[in-house]
Amino acid sequence: MRILIAGMDGYLGWPLAMYLSRRGHEVAGIDVFLRRSMVAEMGGDSATPILPMSDRLAAFEEVFGRRIRFVPGDMRDFDTVSRVLYEFRPEAIVHLGEQPSAPYSMSSRQRAVFTQMNNVEGTLNLLFAMQETCRDAHLVKLGTMGEYGTPNVPIPEGFFTIEYRGRTDTLPFPRQAGSWYHQSKVHDSNNIMLACRVWGLRSTDLMQGVVYGTRTEETAADGRLCTRFDFDQAFGTAVNRFCAQAVIGHPLTPYGKGNQKRGFINIVDSMRCMELAILNPPAGGEYRVFNQFTETFSVNDLAAAVQTAASAAGIPTEVIHPANPRMESEDHFYEADHQRLLDLGLAPHSMSDALAGMIGDLAVHKARIQARREAIFPKTRWRGFEDAVPDHGRMRVHRCQPEPAPREAGMSAPGPR
Amino acid sequence: MRILIAGMDGYLGWPLAMYLSRRGHEVAGIDVFLRRSMVAEMGGDSATPILPMSDRLAAFEEVFGRRIRFVPGDMRDFDTVSRVLYEFRPEAIVHLGEQPSAPYSMSSRQRAVFTQMNNVEGTLNLLFAMQETCRDAHLVKLGTMGEYGTPNVPIPEGFFTIEYRGRTDTLPFPRQAGSWYHQSKVHDSNNIMLACRVWGLRSTDLMQGVVYGTRTEETAADGRLCTRFDFDQAFGTAVNRFCAQAVIGHPLTPYGKGNQKRGFINIVDSMRCMELAILNPPAGGEYRVFNQFTETFSVNDLAAAVQTAASAAGIPTEVIHPANPRMESEDHFYEADHQRLLDLGLAPHSMSDALAGMIGDLAVHKARIQARREAIFPKTRWRGFEDAVPDHGRMRVHRCQPEPAPREAGMSAPGPR
Repeated sequence: MRILIAGMDGYLGWPLAMYLSRRGHEVAGIDVFLRRSMVAEMGGDSATPILPMSDRLAAFEEVFGRRIRFVPGDMRDFDTVSRVLYEFRPEAIVHLGEQPSAPYSMSSRQRAVFTQMNNVEGTLNLLFAMQETCRDAHLVKLGTMGEYGTPNVPIPEGFFTIEYRGRTDTLPFPRQAGSWYHQSKVHDSNNIMLACRVWGLRSTDLMQGVVYGTRTEETAADGRLCTRFDFDQAFGTAVNRFCAQAVIGHPLTPYGKGNQKRGFINIVDSMRCMELAILNPPAGGEYRVFNQFTETFSVNDLAAAVQTAASAAGIPTEVIHPANPRMESEDHFYEADHQRLLDLGLAPHSMSDALAGMIGDLAVHKARIQARREAIFPKTRWRGFEDAVPDHGRMRVHRCQPEPAPREAGMSAPGPR
Repeated sequence: MRILIAGMDGYLGWPLAMYLSRRGHEVAGIDVFLRRSMVAEMGGDSATPILPMSDRLAAFEEVFGRRIRFVPGDMRDFDTVSRVLYEFRPEAIVHLGEQPSAPYSMSSRQRAVFTQMNNVEGTLNLLFAMQETCRDAHLVKLGTMGEYGTPNVPIPEGFFTIEYRGRTDTLPFPRQAGSWYHQSKVHDSNNIMLACRVWGLRSTDLMQGVVYGTRTEETAADGRLCTRFDFDQAFGTAVNRFCAQAVIGHPLTPYGKGNQKRGFINIVDSMRCMELAILNPPAGGEYRVFNQFTETFSVNDLAAAVQTAASAAGIPTEVIHPANPRMESEDHFYEADHQRLLDLGLAPHSMSDALAGMIGDLAVHKARIQARREAIFPKTRWRGFEDAVPDHGRMRVHRCQPEPAPREAGMSAPGPR
């Protein structure tokens, strides 16, 4: 199958390209390398030393004897998106090409606006280019479980049938995303749903949990093929960040009480899920949602599991609880369906089996992690900006005055109640 | 009260500014006059001859002895938004400053992307400027009943309490918007809900029905104070367009079967609703939703009512049914709550009482409507673009080839079923 990967240089994009190519698909990718520069902007760096794209591609061809096509380009440039679709004629498009960090989106106005403009416009461009060029292609879009928030009822896979005031309908499950980034994914989901309805496009929207892991079969085959691994406060997600912390003797840092529950998935299973979605496309006009995670843990569960695995590797670790920089429930109900990918054949890996290997893989890069130690601790606060830059003279005057006292009660009150 | 109106040059913004100023409020406005140029771009023009803003303001001061402040500026320019908020220190902000037309947003890729980028960025800028400058101000945001789509259950005001799999929660009512424009309003609603939650801002999101009417007390006081009145296929909404059609002997044009039902509201009631929201602000941190309409009609009901009113004025009219350019259900359940504004004191006007006056007002401008007759008939089709401009050479070659046969079944199948 001809498969285009938008965001092919990322943590998931690069291993996915190799995974699909090795399984006989014709793979092309597009990326503008924003992830590399944004991580650097936040003072981070990949724990694994990743090669430039051209070297990655050459190494992959050398090791596996297959060629992956690549176009450097920005999803916000419609001409580029349209030309790639016209020339490659993909049968499936996996869209990973977005700004993927909630803390990054919450760290300044500029980054918040950039996140939403970038993600929404890139996805719109893709939808319009598909409508013009390849209406039958299947759009596999990476969303996030964070789109749903943490409702007090079980979370279905995208839609639910309800009775309300004596009538029945199947409706999109309400979204309550908790950051500008997560909201950008909600906007995308809504836009894709509309494109399927009015143009007959077909799409699978994958509500992915937090991905963890250092390796896939392909990245492990040769040192030059490793994928990036972020551990900074903005781009490093919980499990990955905890493992990196353990390796350098940094305390593990569940935010707040640490009872926040989320869904998690191994990078190997993430590859398989995307493959399963591609191999089992929806009908024309269908917009479907899969919840893509395999296990549910609290952040404290994660810290304990990483502590245990580190201890087994002879590394003592401490757990501390920094004040939660996010606005999120720390004690809440959480139960989410994730049956549809299992039904298609997913055989999940468990986190407990993966942690020892992750710590071993990261120990090799201990010096690289140690060098970026300062980037790990949370700095971005959901309630305000540590690095907001006044935009004009008047604001500077204003900002020198004492800030008004925070209205704590109002701030923590949930909107609709 | 100090009240800022974003979009003060529009159909609702201008009469609202006068309405609030006359009731003793200190009013300031901002607008970049996009509506004037977008209507011209679609071949339309206001049926009423509207003055430049400076002349409007001078006439208002002459007639009513009150001054309204105005800043020409774009909501996408954060510095301008922030400076206006800093200098004026509004206690309430009514945000009407968005691209308001569904057909415009569906008429080309460029306009679709512009609509979403413009509306979402403008609202984000406002939220960020409020967070920095006037956290206690009350944001009154104009949404649309179209955010909800046409579900098979009654539509509550923003939120509903449901039981699902034995548990209960109060959740945002699912949104199923039917155009890029309507989706932009959903994106806004989601972003505002988040800002209230994380920053403690307060907001009323008004899900407004279709507004009709030619006059308010203030616009009628002097010919120079009239508000704009659009009747073209993109910016003219159903009732207003039908009245304009009647006046020039153009057939009335309910699209498709005409059984589509929607909520409607008189422009006089729209003013009063916004005032009621302003006078009864929510608590800090609260995001609330009012459904702002007073009557529900099918499009056929509208056509019949306009036909009757025209006949009484001695104008015979014909009703025709153009193929529906939109993708929408033409036979559907529709029942939406609209109690909260009534509870605050709204005393609704009825459409049947208004139509004769509208036809009389428009008859005065018959020649102006006749001059733009060509702009009335629907040209923008939801399924594709009549005026898409190929963006590069390759696409031109591609577009000269015959189009693939439309996949009717897929296209009309709703996404999730």
